[in-house]
Amino acid sequence: MKIIIVGGTGTIGRAVVAELAKRRHDIIVAGTRRGNVLVDITDLDSIKKMYESVGNFDALISTTGKAHFGNMQEMTAEQYMIGLNNKLMGQVNLVLAGLPFINDAGSFTLTSGILSSNPIRFGSSASMVNGALDSFVISAAVEMPRSVRINVVSPTVLQESMEKYGNYFIGFEPTPAARVALAYAKSVEGAQTGQVYEVW
Amino acid sequence: MKIIIVGGTGTIGRAVVAELAKRRHDIIVAGTRRGNVLVDITDLDSIKKMYESVGNFDALISTTGKAHFGNMQEMTAEQYMIGLNNKLMGQVNLVLAGLPFINDAGSFTLTSGILSSNPIRFGSSASMVNGALDSFVISAAVEMPRSVRINVVSPTVLQESMEKYGNYFIGFEPTPAARVALAYAKSVEGAQTGQVYEVW
Repeated sequence: MKIIIVGGTGTIGRAVVAELAKRRHDIIVAGTRRGNVLVDITDLDSIKKMYESVGNFDALISTTGKAHFGNMQEMTAEQYMIGLNNKLMGQVNLVLAGLPFINDAGSFTLTSGILSSNPIRFGSSASMVNGALDSFVISAAVEMPRSVRINVVSPTVLQESMEKYGNYFIGFEPTPAARVALAYAKSVEGAQTGQVYEVW
Repeated sequence: MKIIIVGGTGTIGRAVVAELAKRRHDIIVAGTRRGNVLVDITDLDSIKKMYESVGNFDALISTTGKAHFGNMQEMTAEQYMIGLNNKLMGQVNLVLAGLPFINDAGSFTLTSGILSSNPIRFGSSASMVNGALDSFVISAAVEMPRSVRINVVSPTVLQESMEKYGNYFIGFEPTPAARVALAYAKSVEGAQTGQVYEVW
């Protein structure tokens, strides 16, 4: 399969590349600054250019997206918009702009996260965005043309991120990126659609 | 209790007013064009003016918010932004701007909807927004100051709306607005926080 991984240079992205590389796939890594092709997911034109340069493909995996973390009582609408424009609409635009290029029975796999239902302090924007992504995918699945599928992987905090973020996730059971990567492989090489794969 | 109902002139809003009026409350209806006070929830300044004119309060209920319905394959980012700016951030801004005015142990009650987990064709924007609202409320609840509570009511399609929208909701069990209104009363006069009250 010809598979694009947006965010393929990140912690989850690299693990997904390693997992998919076990089988015979043509993997194209897309990143903001590094990769086989460059893309800025907050810029629809940049997304379109990525698809035009890559051409038709079988699977799009997105393991990217930012949101602002901060005290809800002090958060501004602008700070919530960061997550809505980047992690949410960035990934949604990858789907919308990818539809003309994806092969029949191809798949989109996005990334949300555990904060949708397991909140932490300072995480209200990420919670909002993750919940939006899960529900978007459930709904978009029923409108996909040509047997195209769409799923979303919702990981818990990564073992690799515990040194940096562990204090915000006390009591959460961290999981290695390699285990999270399995869910992307299941989405791409499996047959389901409209699924939220929780890796918790 | 002093209760503000934004969208109090709509189908759900009127039912909520009728339900709350059974007990002794000071009810302030806020609407875009009609009501005791006018407010445009897409305009943060308008929201702030509403709170300044109303002063301190015990409960804010929002039964308002628009999203664009359309074929997902043809939807644009701009059309998704309608729901994000109106139903999502409009209600989130009611919370953020209301914090300085809400009394200790007061409550916010927002409105999402069944499409978060039960999708229909043309509903991907509403699904996204409803999922975002549910997760925002779950998360915002853990950061509320002074015992302030926050919940969200997620109604199915209204019996009152079946003539207009019934064809999009084949097989959904419609419910009268009066039954949905009970969930708002439970949120305001009950004791829970961080709850998604599904009225399905």
